[in-house]
Amino acid sequence: MQAQTAHLVQPDAQLMRYKEVRAFTEQLAARLSAEDSCVQSMPDASPAKWHLAHTSWFFETFVLQAHATGYRAFHPDYSVLFNSYYNGIGAMHPRPQRGMLTRPPLAEVLAYRRHVDVAMQQYIASDKTGLTHAALIELGLNHEQQHQELLLTDIKHLFSLNPAWPAYAVNELVPTPSADLKWSAGPRGRCDFGSEGASFCFDNEQPRHSQWLQPYEIAERPVSNGEFRGFVQDRGYEKPEYWLSDGWGLVLQEGWRRPLYWSDDCRTELTLSGRWPIDDHAPVTHLSYYEADAYARWAGARLPTEFEWEAVASQQAIRGNFVESGRLHPGGPVADPGRWFGDVWEWTASAYAGYPGYQPAAGAVGEYNGKFVCNQLVLRGGSCVTSQSHIRASYRNFFYPSARWQFSGLRLARDLPIQ
Amino acid sequence: MQAQTAHLVQPDAQLMRYKEVRAFTEQLAARLSAEDSCVQSMPDASPAKWHLAHTSWFFETFVLQAHATGYRAFHPDYSVLFNSYYNGIGAMHPRPQRGMLTRPPLAEVLAYRRHVDVAMQQYIASDKTGLTHAALIELGLNHEQQHQELLLTDIKHLFSLNPAWPAYAVNELVPTPSADLKWSAGPRGRCDFGSEGASFCFDNEQPRHSQWLQPYEIAERPVSNGEFRGFVQDRGYEKPEYWLSDGWGLVLQEGWRRPLYWSDDCRTELTLSGRWPIDDHAPVTHLSYYEADAYARWAGARLPTEFEWEAVASQQAIRGNFVESGRLHPGGPVADPGRWFGDVWEWTASAYAGYPGYQPAAGAVGEYNGKFVCNQLVLRGGSCVTSQSHIRASYRNFFYPSARWQFSGLRLARDLPIQ
Amino acid sequence: MQAQTAHLVQPDAQLMRYKEVRAFTEQLAARLSAEDSCVQSMPDASPAKWHLAHTSWFFETFVLQAHATGYRAFHPDYSVLFNSYYNGIGAMHPRPQRGMLTRPPLAEVLAYRRHVDVAMQQYIASDKTGLTHAALIELGLNHEQQHQELLLTDIKHLFSLNPAWPAYAVNELVPTPSADLKWSAGPRGRCDFGSEGASFCFDNEQPRHSQWLQPYEIAERPVSNGEFRGFVQDRGYEKPEYWLSDGWGLVLQEGWRRPLYWSDDCRTELTLSGRWPIDDHAPVTHLSYYEADAYARWAGARLPTEFEWEAVASQQAIRGNFVESGRLHPGGPVADPGRWFGDVWEWTASAYAGYPGYQPAAGAVGEYNGKFVCNQLVLRGGSCVTSQSHIRASYRNFFYPSARWQFSGLRLARDLPIQ
Amino acid sequence: MQAQTAHLVQPDAQLMRYKEVRAFTEQLAARLSAEDSCVQSMPDASPAKWHLAHTSWFFETFVLQAHATGYRAFHPDYSVLFNSYYNGIGAMHPRPQRGMLTRPPLAEVLAYRRHVDVAMQQYIASDKTGLTHAALIELGLNHEQQHQELLLTDIKHLFSLNPAWPAYAVNELVPTPSADLKWSAGPRGRCDFGSEGASFCFDNEQPRHSQWLQPYEIAERPVSNGEFRGFVQDRGYEKPEYWLSDGWGLVLQEGWRRPLYWSDDCRTELTLSGRWPIDDHAPVTHLSYYEADAYARWAGARLPTEFEWEAVASQQAIRGNFVESGRLHPGGPVADPGRWFGDVWEWTASAYAGYPGYQPAAGAVGEYNGKFVCNQLVLRGGSCVTSQSHIRASYRNFFYPSARWQFSGLRLARDLPIQ
Repeated sequence: MQAQTAHLVQPDAQLMRYKEVRAFTEQLAARLSAEDSCVQSMPDASPAKWHLAHTSWFFETFVLQAHATGYRAFHPDYSVLFNSYYNGIGAMHPRPQRGMLTRPPLAEVLAYRRHVDVAMQQYIASDKTGLTHAALIELGLNHEQQHQELLLTDIKHLFSLNPAWPAYAVNELVPTPSADLKWSAGPRGRCDFGSEGASFCFDNEQPRHSQWLQPYEIAERPVSNGEFRGFVQDRGYEKPEYWLSDGWGLVLQEGWRRPLYWSDDCRTELTLSGRWPIDDHAPVTHLSYYEADAYARWAGARLPTEFEWEAVASQQAIRGNFVESGRLHPGGPVADPGRWFGDVWEWTASAYAGYPGYQPAAGAVGEYNGKFVCNQLVLRGGSCVTSQSHIRASYRNFFYPSARWQFSGLRLARDLPIQ
Repeated sequence: MQAQTAHLVQPDAQLMRYKEVRAFTEQLAARLSAEDSCVQSMPDASPAKWHLAHTSWFFETFVLQAHATGYRAFHPDYSVLFNSYYNGIGAMHPRPQRGMLTRPPLAEVLAYRRHVDVAMQQYIASDKTGLTHAALIELGLNHEQQHQELLLTDIKHLFSLNPAWPAYAVNELVPTPSADLKWSAGPRGRCDFGSEGASFCFDNEQPRHSQWLQPYEIAERPVSNGEFRGFVQDRGYEKPEYWLSDGWGLVLQEGWRRPLYWSDDCRTELTLSGRWPIDDHAPVTHLSYYEADAYARWAGARLPTEFEWEAVASQQAIRGNFVESGRLHPGGPVADPGRWFGDVWEWTASAYAGYPGYQPAAGAVGEYNGKFVCNQLVLRGGSCVTSQSHIRASYRNFFYPSARWQFSGLRLARDLPIQ
Repeated sequence: MQAQTAHLVQPDAQLMRYKEVRAFTEQLAARLSAEDSCVQSMPDASPAKWHLAHTSWFFETFVLQAHATGYRAFHPDYSVLFNSYYNGIGAMHPRPQRGMLTRPPLAEVLAYRRHVDVAMQQYIASDKTGLTHAALIELGLNHEQQHQELLLTDIKHLFSLNPAWPAYAVNELVPTPSADLKWSAGPRGRCDFGSEGASFCFDNEQPRHSQWLQPYEIAERPVSNGEFRGFVQDRGYEKPEYWLSDGWGLVLQEGWRRPLYWSDDCRTELTLSGRWPIDDHAPVTHLSYYEADAYARWAGARLPTEFEWEAVASQQAIRGNFVESGRLHPGGPVADPGRWFGDVWEWTASAYAGYPGYQPAAGAVGEYNGKFVCNQLVLRGGSCVTSQSHIRASYRNFFYPSARWQFSGLRLARDLPIQ
Repeated sequence: MQAQTAHLVQPDAQLMRYKEVRAFTEQLAARLSAEDSCVQSMPDASPAKWHLAHTSWFFETFVLQAHATGYRAFHPDYSVLFNSYYNGIGAMHPRPQRGMLTRPPLAEVLAYRRHVDVAMQQYIASDKTGLTHAALIELGLNHEQQHQELLLTDIKHLFSLNPAWPAYAVNELVPTPSADLKWSAGPRGRCDFGSEGASFCFDNEQPRHSQWLQPYEIAERPVSNGEFRGFVQDRGYEKPEYWLSDGWGLVLQEGWRRPLYWSDDCRTELTLSGRWPIDDHAPVTHLSYYEADAYARWAGARLPTEFEWEAVASQQAIRGNFVESGRLHPGGPVADPGRWFGDVWEWTASAYAGYPGYQPAAGAVGEYNGKFVCNQLVLRGGSCVTSQSHIRASYRNFFYPSARWQFSGLRLARDLPIQ
């Protein structure tokens, strides 16, 4: 949580943003039936109804109950039911059992959202004190945007387990134009990283600090489906020499043979708009870190570190294929070869850790990021289901290296000689 | 499946019964939301929606598609989606993933039921040939009654995992009057067992055959909650000397300390009507075989064999607390100490096996019972969620000894000296 | 434990038998190095050193410490270390960790045997009271014979996990002559079963009691390797219609494709004398219950019940290929088609249960058999690694249906019409 | 593997070192029986016999078979049996089954060592070509020193599972004197890290490269048992606020309540010399990363990064309590508060990764370190069972964060303000 006052927003502006973000969550959920919204497909995923409720719980817990005079909780059970992982708040419903909550029904959760929205809008509008908690509210909105993305990846996973493969959307997935793979050298030596604090950021993007970079070059676009098919056809999934030891163990144990949602014949893939032919020039996605790393080794390259990535990306405009495009899948018909954002989260070679001098916020909200700095890898850049207003060059996402259900792909990097 | 012609029914009678049984399933499901109907709480349980569909699949597959001229299947996917375990029919959706089927929605499954009902009623009404398949239809109806019971036990398990413990029904659970434990000697020597074939039975109740019984006596009512509490208070769950070796392993592994739905303080229990004080004189229920067996050993008695049970029960009237009472829980205010049916399924000491000369029916329907004759124990007598029209003295239910989510209890037996 | 006085033995005779049985255990272990004797290949198996110690613990605990005046235990830790499963005695070392006991070394365990032998021989020789505990000692000797057999099957399993497949013995496995499969009808109606008590038996062979048998016929010899290969070649391991539901689950989960120790090409098998060509006319062995049952169904027959088996076997002489032959593998060059004992334990269709009126002995020794009467199936007849002096028609062995590491095979049975 | 020629050694010197290292392995194993040497206590650990053989396999495979004219392998099976994880060499015996290898016996493995030693000594002595493979041999010797350490930690784990807790050694563990906790600021800004290549190093210590350090201070000695007891007494193992999310999951799942080998009352601990009172002023050891990290948070500090550690340690003399002291346990009677090496491996906050520009060696030997750069954390400094000649400031050890069976402890660090 970022509590700096540097990026104060006006109540009116925040009110508008609050309404927009909250409405978008419900717009995403509106395509789902009560049944779709209730089921949990695996412990890593959550039901859509839970996302709807938990994001409201966040505002209720950290803003309204903490700061809004006279606020009355919507329901006494919700404090436990929709707590995700904040031990500081108290008990929580076990994560693997989120799908057991057929009650409260979807309609009641939507009423909960109404209840919280009324109170929040009142609270924001009435704040005469100089926006004491504007940063906290902004954190809640960014939190909700993260869950919007998860809602989509989680529903994709759920639908993938239905033999009828239901379509969430009805987009026509126009193919992506071809683009050569070009490389460019990145900044080297002492460089500064992390948010400068001029606008909202998560606590894990700070403190801004220096790192020293050796010479390297980095690809101007992510690896494509067509390129990745070369690895599959070269029997890359059967050759241990390309794999990290832990990854090879998973290949054998789970029987991995291709990206998660590819068909056995590597011709079609599951998308949020149903089954489509694999788009050869679109970025490959739904890769674990192990698959991304193995591909890079096979290709004679490596994954960039998160700092190499940021050093280049911070010089780029934030444009690309985000959730706003409505495509909900990487790629697209407009050629834009040099884009660094959107499409797929890009695995980096960097283990997720706090930056030097990192301090989580005081209180339970400090659990937001701080307790996950082990066993996960940093991904950068946002995906086709990320909001454009949510992303920036310093943004750090993180997942376990085995995770495949996110829109995760990769970009290659290579060492350059030290002159 | 019992194909004998001895118990032919008239089309009109069967039509009426068909309508009644089918309507009752929907009546049971009507109290559930689409969300309640969709979720699977564990691999042993199935969603209510799945029960609604699978029972229709049974008629569609074994009657309509096999015998009804011109029948058109409702949906091509359903053959796989709602096949439970019939390898002879072809592929099937994996059992542990039944809860992933948010689509088809509940409304479509109800339409499926309409579609099958129209065709079935036409088929039954138009049958001029002497009811060739009346026995098969009767099998389907009994099959559906089994799933009615499972629908209730499965929803109870699902609701038990919701911290709010939703109530399925709103019954007032009037306490059960006390009844002394009386014993009576059962028939001995050569006795005959199994269905005589005068009315419908499952294939596992035949052939009728002889067994030789040693002298024994058997309790006139099941063990009560109050009696079982004595075992708990004597720390029976902590003393290996009462337990079968495999049961003791489970006690340690699962941390069993009391019956499944009892509260920690042994004062209240979860019922289909929410949480209620434990009814001391009602039969104890939701016991695994191991718990039933351990209790019997602690009480200086043993479980009866299924033949001892049947030898006595076949002389009794079929009356008791069935699903028709609407109580949906063992016990009740009417004193009826000698009843042998209803309330709780009673674990017997008999491993489930085919009777001498047993032959499963030809074709896929022969998988109904035949392939489960290993690792399970026989239970007798029906429960408070069994239909009265479904039960009889020769009826054999069977579950794994670890199963606790059924309405399962016990009745004691003891050896008598061989004079 | 059988405490009857009917089969009192003279001290001299028992002393001689004690020496013989004890010496044979050590003779079996003498072919093993200290390393071979120490390792546990799976939780179901035990190290040879543990067998050597536990059989001595049995005498020490149930005879010497209970009844021998002035006996001093060899080592205070052994009471816990070498207790197998007697909760009544106290704590025990966890079964899956028996292989962790590199100390005490083999030499010390052999010294323990010396210590117990001296005391036992003194105790037996000095007993002037009419052999009060002769039956208990005889139980200990039969217990030790059971562990002799386990020592051999456990070492076979251990060696099977060594890529070099060490040979325990150096026998030449002369092939078995062919023998036609003949059938004969067994006794029917009321028959009596169980030990008559004239000589030693385990408690699970009593009380002698009646059962009622329907007409059946039974094969005069077990199923052979050649016959079983027919099932394999007919792709029996790929056809669910032959399998019990639980068995089919294991076939898929474990990838079963042939008997445990057969080579992939079904030409050779691992034996205690190393790898040999499969002997087509020898009884097939190392089958689980599921495989035996599936084969019988494929062959249009079924497994006999334990009572059908005993009704015929009790009329047969006890001769056959036992451990005394030294072959340590089923079959052999001498044609003896009608033999009912030795070679392989024969799976029966009977779940293991106490006989009517069964009472385990008082005290901890009552745990010997009584707490295992669930989830296991009865096997009859003894095997090529059973002592001839240990076996009889009423003998009941029992294992879980998934067990494959014993010398377990099958004999076919069929129903005959009820005239 | 480091193939630079900068640190060529003379054949005579290398021959002497070869003999010393090889002899020390056997000296360590000499205290173990054949049984002790054979058993594997968990998949992470290996039997001592396997360590003896695998270290020889390394020389045989990478030196003798690759480069020594006319060398004949000791046994054709050993190439598979004693390959640890080199996919490039071919098949390997599965790691969790190393303990099944009762054959070859210990004596034969010792003969294998003789065979390899004769050939290696000949090869070293006869090398007239300028020591082409001296670096490879030095790698093999360092590899063997790593396995010497593992032999000791693995035997400690095995003995810990024996209720009699055998002692490997018979040292008197004289208590450690008290030492105040002092802090000193470390170097900051651009610093260089990694081996300068003047003497042997592993490939993961190179390339030497720059990192940028923020201001920090670091404790002059590791955390002591007495200090860690404070965390235990403050119920640190019950408070999620101190734990990483994954660590807290393990605490609950595994029931962690104190360091691995501490007794329940926190008064004694298991050592390689049996059970001893906990030495309050000696460094705490056998901590997982999660425990080390939780302690640091509780103490208001953090773990140092591996670069912070190395920046200070590279200025220190390499002295301390190593395996040469014979104590085989952290601490000791000589006050030496500022020592940075020996006693315990110190967990750092750095995920194990290749240094910028890292390239594994070509061929199978490149699997030595390269494929493990995921999910592990770096530890620094060596322990009481590390050879002093094996350690240096740039040395990087790595283990999974859940590992507890190594001599692993921690040293605290703190941020200093950026002036």
